[in-house]
Amino acid sequence: MTAARLKTAVLGATGYSGLELTRILLRHPRLEKPVLLRRSADNGSPADLADVFPVLCGNGGYPLHPLSWSALKQNSVQLLFLATPHEVSRSLVPEAIAHGMRVIDLSGAWRLKQEQHRAIYGFEDSDAITAADLTEKAIYGLPELNGDRIANAALVANPGCYATSIILGLAPLLKAGVVDRSRGIVSDSKSGVSGAGKEPTPKTHFVSVADNLSAYSVFNHRHLGEIVEQLGLGDQELIFTPHLLPIPRGILSTIYVYLNRMMTALEVESCFRNFYSDKRWIRIFQTPKLPQVQFSLNSNYCDLGFCLAEDGRRLVLISCIDNLLKGAAGQAVQNMNLMFGWGEEEGLQ
Amino acid sequence: MTAARLKTAVLGATGYSGLELTRILLRHPRLEKPVLLRRSADNGSPADLADVFPVLCGNGGYPLHPLSWSALKQNSVQLLFLATPHEVSRSLVPEAIAHGMRVIDLSGAWRLKQEQHRAIYGFEDSDAITAADLTEKAIYGLPELNGDRIANAALVANPGCYATSIILGLAPLLKAGVVDRSRGIVSDSKSGVSGAGKEPTPKTHFVSVADNLSAYSVFNHRHLGEIVEQLGLGDQELIFTPHLLPIPRGILSTIYVYLNRMMTALEVESCFRNFYSDKRWIRIFQTPKLPQVQFSLNSNYCDLGFCLAEDGRRLVLISCIDNLLKGAAGQAVQNMNLMFGWGEEEGLQ
Amino acid sequence: MTAARLKTAVLGATGYSGLELTRILLRHPRLEKPVLLRRSADNGSPADLADVFPVLCGNGGYPLHPLSWSALKQNSVQLLFLATPHEVSRSLVPEAIAHGMRVIDLSGAWRLKQEQHRAIYGFEDSDAITAADLTEKAIYGLPELNGDRIANAALVANPGCYATSIILGLAPLLKAGVVDRSRGIVSDSKSGVSGAGKEPTPKTHFVSVADNLSAYSVFNHRHLGEIVEQLGLGDQELIFTPHLLPIPRGILSTIYVYLNRMMTALEVESCFRNFYSDKRWIRIFQTPKLPQVQFSLNSNYCDLGFCLAEDGRRLVLISCIDNLLKGAAGQAVQNMNLMFGWGEEEGLQ
Amino acid sequence: MTAARLKTAVLGATGYSGLELTRILLRHPRLEKPVLLRRSADNGSPADLADVFPVLCGNGGYPLHPLSWSALKQNSVQLLFLATPHEVSRSLVPEAIAHGMRVIDLSGAWRLKQEQHRAIYGFEDSDAITAADLTEKAIYGLPELNGDRIANAALVANPGCYATSIILGLAPLLKAGVVDRSRGIVSDSKSGVSGAGKEPTPKTHFVSVADNLSAYSVFNHRHLGEIVEQLGLGDQELIFTPHLLPIPRGILSTIYVYLNRMMTALEVESCFRNFYSDKRWIRIFQTPKLPQVQFSLNSNYCDLGFCLAEDGRRLVLISCIDNLLKGAAGQAVQNMNLMFGWGEEEGLQ
Repeated sequence: MTAARLKTAVLGATGYSGLELTRILLRHPRLEKPVLLRRSADNGSPADLADVFPVLCGNGGYPLHPLSWSALKQNSVQLLFLATPHEVSRSLVPEAIAHGMRVIDLSGAWRLKQEQHRAIYGFEDSDAITAADLTEKAIYGLPELNGDRIANAALVANPGCYATSIILGLAPLLKAGVVDRSRGIVSDSKSGVSGAGKEPTPKTHFVSVADNLSAYSVFNHRHLGEIVEQLGLGDQELIFTPHLLPIPRGILSTIYVYLNRMMTALEVESCFRNFYSDKRWIRIFQTPKLPQVQFSLNSNYCDLGFCLAEDGRRLVLISCIDNLLKGAAGQAVQNMNLMFGWGEEEGLQ
Repeated sequence: MTAARLKTAVLGATGYSGLELTRILLRHPRLEKPVLLRRSADNGSPADLADVFPVLCGNGGYPLHPLSWSALKQNSVQLLFLATPHEVSRSLVPEAIAHGMRVIDLSGAWRLKQEQHRAIYGFEDSDAITAADLTEKAIYGLPELNGDRIANAALVANPGCYATSIILGLAPLLKAGVVDRSRGIVSDSKSGVSGAGKEPTPKTHFVSVADNLSAYSVFNHRHLGEIVEQLGLGDQELIFTPHLLPIPRGILSTIYVYLNRMMTALEVESCFRNFYSDKRWIRIFQTPKLPQVQFSLNSNYCDLGFCLAEDGRRLVLISCIDNLLKGAAGQAVQNMNLMFGWGEEEGLQ
Repeated sequence: MTAARLKTAVLGATGYSGLELTRILLRHPRLEKPVLLRRSADNGSPADLADVFPVLCGNGGYPLHPLSWSALKQNSVQLLFLATPHEVSRSLVPEAIAHGMRVIDLSGAWRLKQEQHRAIYGFEDSDAITAADLTEKAIYGLPELNGDRIANAALVANPGCYATSIILGLAPLLKAGVVDRSRGIVSDSKSGVSGAGKEPTPKTHFVSVADNLSAYSVFNHRHLGEIVEQLGLGDQELIFTPHLLPIPRGILSTIYVYLNRMMTALEVESCFRNFYSDKRWIRIFQTPKLPQVQFSLNSNYCDLGFCLAEDGRRLVLISCIDNLLKGAAGQAVQNMNLMFGWGEEEGLQ
Repeated sequence: MTAARLKTAVLGATGYSGLELTRILLRHPRLEKPVLLRRSADNGSPADLADVFPVLCGNGGYPLHPLSWSALKQNSVQLLFLATPHEVSRSLVPEAIAHGMRVIDLSGAWRLKQEQHRAIYGFEDSDAITAADLTEKAIYGLPELNGDRIANAALVANPGCYATSIILGLAPLLKAGVVDRSRGIVSDSKSGVSGAGKEPTPKTHFVSVADNLSAYSVFNHRHLGEIVEQLGLGDQELIFTPHLLPIPRGILSTIYVYLNRMMTALEVESCFRNFYSDKRWIRIFQTPKLPQVQFSLNSNYCDLGFCLAEDGRRLVLISCIDNLLKGAAGQAVQNMNLMFGWGEEEGLQ
């Protein structure tokens, strides 16, 4: 006998992450066709997702329904995905939880535990006891680190794309206690343009991006907070510099670490292999091979590789993901799989 | 004794063509430093062009002055360049002419003689006798075709970028009377994104353009009118299909022509060489070599090449320009050189 | 009871099309894991496909076995895919057929029936009775046109990428008899660089391709022969101009047709819809929407759209495919599905 | 009375740097048309540079002459540019010097003073007293640091492109003694593909580069030696990681430095402004503005900017150049200007 399929809904399918998410959910073997939602305010918004993304044509319709809690309940929707701006997520999640739904939120609204990190998002925590409470309960949805807690979570805060690449690169070394934190850690990260969202701006204009590379938000990118929180680092122990690459998607983080003792390449590799021994979506490259952005594109993999200096103390890590998959929609589905007891790879192959 | 340098002004330097124009004027040996203007309405607009284009930093300031006719007259500005939207050009040119300035307008405002072609720009010709009169007097600024009339013009309507590439490709054959016009002419044209302007739109978003190619404005692009007018073609004798290329700049037009008699490649080449015998900014490629977009980038050249079928009747022309130079700013300077009796290459090498 | 899975082998998996093909076959529900072959001469060649394409890491090995007919027979391989240069296909196919295997060949070796078209490939037909015989028996593997014959074929000649985009665009109109062939047909086609193969050449160097567009092989591209043969056109009725786009993959053909009677857009659309009424992998765009390269990337779709001039006689068709999928590996799998009686969409969604 | 123009020659004009160099020399006001040379071994090599680079068409010929010392002497060539592989430069320079010419060598052949750094180039120093001697006498051609010595040099070793961007970024801070060297310095550098040379390789294939980013030569790039030598650093004080960007040209180095005392942004900026107070080709960006690759493209500028953390101790520098100009040909011309007592900007504007 086949188990009943899960009913899900997606708000924000008209963004880049939302589209990827929708496409994965549509072919996920455990799900009914997801309900696609639009915010009621979106009167002039498109009625069908294929109008926004012609890539979807030809497989039947993708109607966008106005968000209605009663309709969702009538429909027995158990899981709501939010691929919305953080302000929207901040206001909608308490209601969704109150209606008994579980939520996976792809925004930054619920990722941060420490108030000084939340400041950059401009949240007024004082306004809502619920919000404060949910902030406490929200689980940071990085499956390789928080798998058990995700399984039982009502609210999963899906990690930021840069954060995913950096945390997954550093966690094994920090847990092993081999990092000389007194010398500081640097993550020089580069992202494709889809990470900046679908809104047309001077910064995302083709002529501004092509044949170019630029650093931005140095020392004040929003993802810094979640990275140091998850890694247990002080705010000044990590320098994180994002750059905008002239490519549509993909992230490569080059991470610089000094070791507190001399190690061999084999030891470093073992450190990663042990930490991620049973992890389906981590690939560890054997030195001298290094990940490249292309290798993990269109997949849910996080590719990790490294180069150790001859002195056995200076280490360069390379961490690559597809920012829209392992950095957003793919990871959200991986989290769903954990939340409902399915294999982590389901729907993602 | 050195001749006094010409005083010029530019309105619209903050666009892509305006920037290129400004950079050329700044190093032109016959000119004083041009006066850079901004429209009075632009209160929030930048005070210096280097704030808009950091590429200009480090060579001193580029202050933007509010447009004032009296200041221009006091300054003895003799030539005004307009790199503005066509509506703005339409409203400002009569005044500039009335104040005794000569004008080179880079917009489509004054290029069209036939009312049915002007319709697409939405001009109300009835509103102004001046406008109607100027439309008559404006000279279409394609130096290789209209050199003599440009020399004496008060108002030069600088050609469209696509139009430049297509007219220069077809004119020699049409003048020679060797085209079988009954079979129709096709220009399949491809342009870099700077041709779409600096305004951020969904169409110019990096993610929409990269890894993509798209056709647009099929059968109704604004440049169609000026092309057929200048070539003496009927509206239905030419099919012109623009495409958006994932490159910042450059145009390649692939033009399909049937000949009305069998010709040899040598005859076709002679036809081009004779027509452009003394033209500094035309390069004719010897078959089987063909122009590519890269070859004319950052130059004022129009590169022309062709391929003739074995039957001697079917001809494929390739015409390449840099849309911001020969297709806009470079051609404007070439026109200025003609208007003031200088060599066509001055300031453009 | 589940049917036994089909055993297949692939020679040439180390090329771009071969990789795509391998990836599809690996997840195809009707197949055993395909046997990956390398030519015996390839002594220095890689032992595992993941060494060539790191994108494959992490899912177990992809060993490359030297080609051995006896091993294939022992393995009960029923279907051999060749993603090899045409000379290799020309020499291997007769043997494979003799050993009782069915073959899908992705090269140009067996696509052409008319000797004058084969000349460009330099085949010596006189050398082999078998070759001549197979040329006759080989079925041109365009499923939308030749579905029935493909179903029973021993040898399927998988179409060229450009050819696929052009034939699928023109076939409905030519079959309907609405094309004014006396005025000629033009296909201005543009392809991503993967179409040029994986061999590094000056032409495929990043610096030669980026920020560029170039036409090549005008009037003498190898695909011209198969296009006119399949469409029943004379060699001079079609001008086909390929261009190299600065993108990794995707083809857009802009096809110019004069109609022999005035038609409405609705009639043109009906012509396409009727012709492809039950075709799973054709998407017809409703005017004024037009296909773009991005829309069919990473899919097996051929997207068709058009623009009809106001005179109802001049028609611009846009046909887009992913050159590595519908233009190569995807179509090969679609052909396999037909040959073994499965749904055309299996393994391709 | 006008001074006689200098006679120069270029060997290696058929590479990317050589082409840029030739184009600058051709319009340099102090020079005769340079003699373009090809190595005698190049029998099958092109006879004219325009055959290699069609961008040069239309300005007359660029004949390539076989290298002959006697012809160069007869021609009174005083300055020889070598844009050749380092092995070639290593073997030709002693002869050129012996013939009384001054030499600017763009390769890595003569940049390194310390034998352990030269090892990576595989030179056999023991083979030639001359070579050892010249190694001593060669001046590292970074005009902003070594201007006086360049002026009198017989042999100028033009710096590497990465090295230029990194040395110019770090020199002011190191000279000011404000760097906490005990914490290490990181330069995460990214370069366009022209830096990899014109030879087609799997690494420079368009499909390998586009939509990608990759790190390479971590801990063992050839430029590391010249960087630490020029900056007076120990080999382990700097981690330098090069990356290949999907753009044709341009370098951005993101450099991480810890200060040994708390500084303000104004102090840091002053440190740069004082160090480069009279330097024509350095642009210093005022925080929070940062250089981008586009800003210095097609110019000889090195653009420098920085971001200082709130703690006043952690500093991120951004250094951008055009790798073919300030990183190669432009800097070579700047060196020539110094060697012959001309303004540093001549021919480079």
